[in-house]
Amino acid sequence: MAEPTHKPLRPQRLTAKGAATRERIVRAAAELMHTQGVERTSLDDVIAVSGTGRSQLYHYFADKAAIVDAVVEFQIEQVLGAQEELLRNADSMNGLTRWRDAVVAHNRSLKGAHGCPLGSLASALSDSSEITRQAIARGFDRWEGALRTGLQHMRQTGALAQEADPATLATGLLAALQGGYLLAQARRDATSIQVALDTALDHIRSFTR
Amino acid sequence: MAEPTHKPLRPQRLTAKGAATRERIVRAAAELMHTQGVERTSLDDVIAVSGTGRSQLYHYFADKAAIVDAVVEFQIEQVLGAQEELLRNADSMNGLTRWRDAVVAHNRSLKGAHGCPLGSLASALSDSSEITRQAIARGFDRWEGALRTGLQHMRQTGALAQEADPATLATGLLAALQGGYLLAQARRDATSIQVALDTALDHIRSFTR
Repeated sequence: MAEPTHKPLRPQRLTAKGAATRERIVRAAAELMHTQGVERTSLDDVIAVSGTGRSQLYHYFADKAAIVDAVVEFQIEQVLGAQEELLRNADSMNGLTRWRDAVVAHNRSLKGAHGCPLGSLASALSDSSEITRQAIARGFDRWEGALRTGLQHMRQTGALAQEADPATLATGLLAALQGGYLLAQARRDATSIQVALDTALDHIRSFTR
Repeated sequence: MAEPTHKPLRPQRLTAKGAATRERIVRAAAELMHTQGVERTSLDDVIAVSGTGRSQLYHYFADKAAIVDAVVEFQIEQVLGAQEELLRNADSMNGLTRWRDAVVAHNRSLKGAHGCPLGSLASALSDSSEITRQAIARGFDRWEGALRTGLQHMRQTGALAQEADPATLATGLLAALQGGYLLAQARRDATSIQVALDTALDHIRSFTR
């Protein structure tokens, strides 16, 4: 099977200095694409903001599609890294509430703007490239898995009733989070994400005893 | 205050034939932007798909921003028109379940693809233009209002307990729907939207008596 033409060079083939340059490009592209959109972000923007030269950028990335793929990979690691850390102790209602507090506080600091870095990429890219869509879907699977793990633990310890289904509750919670991000972005107001998460947590609470 | 430069000509100033041409352009643009994204849709695409000439298009729209605004207006009417019709009888658990069935069946017919026409516009455009963001936010307000009206009716008739808050439940339900659309789009599988809606409806059901 042919390799996709826009497959990025793997970081491990690079020298330490090369890897640092590549990462500077990806970070700048990720920030630009999150705040102004994937399509509105040009290679010229990335060159200007990352402070790299054009030939340097083309040394690491064949084209914009290669940068987009690297940004998807980068945001999955950023978002999931932070979320898995926050969700490490989300195996009780108190733990889930602390996670909710952190998400809402961060969204409030942005006045609801920009949405979820991964959710925005999902909306912009899911219909454009099958490889990219699958990478994003795996990111959501991993996120849902982190939520499910805590809920499974709660069910095993008897904190959640046996009739509670951790898989269903995790999908519902991730959907509430993503929908909350989107409504907050459109309304420029974090209230929607707070209400969405509280509603989903109230539902989980109804299975506690 | 200065008029925004990209304000579209109002349809009411047009002849019947002019209004039909304008609508053909907007419909084509809306379909393209929904399936391939706002930014990836060029004026050339719109001209080709709508079968209008370039000078004809510029007679109705000053630039792409004007078409985007018209598409937002068009999708709000399309989506809300259909949703308000579906939600007309959503003032009981049976009515809400029929609404859920219709949304899930439609999403399943697309194998989860493309997301919500209004949600996708919200993600792509909320950070780009304040006027456009406000229009989209009003669309979501109207949608949430249609959900809230049914829930208020259920509370008034005693179908929902007095402690149920229709406003909160409506926000939670709309967030579940939007998050479900997004997860279904990324996964190319309507199961996420079904689980998200069922979780939100289960929560509402816990207030019935």
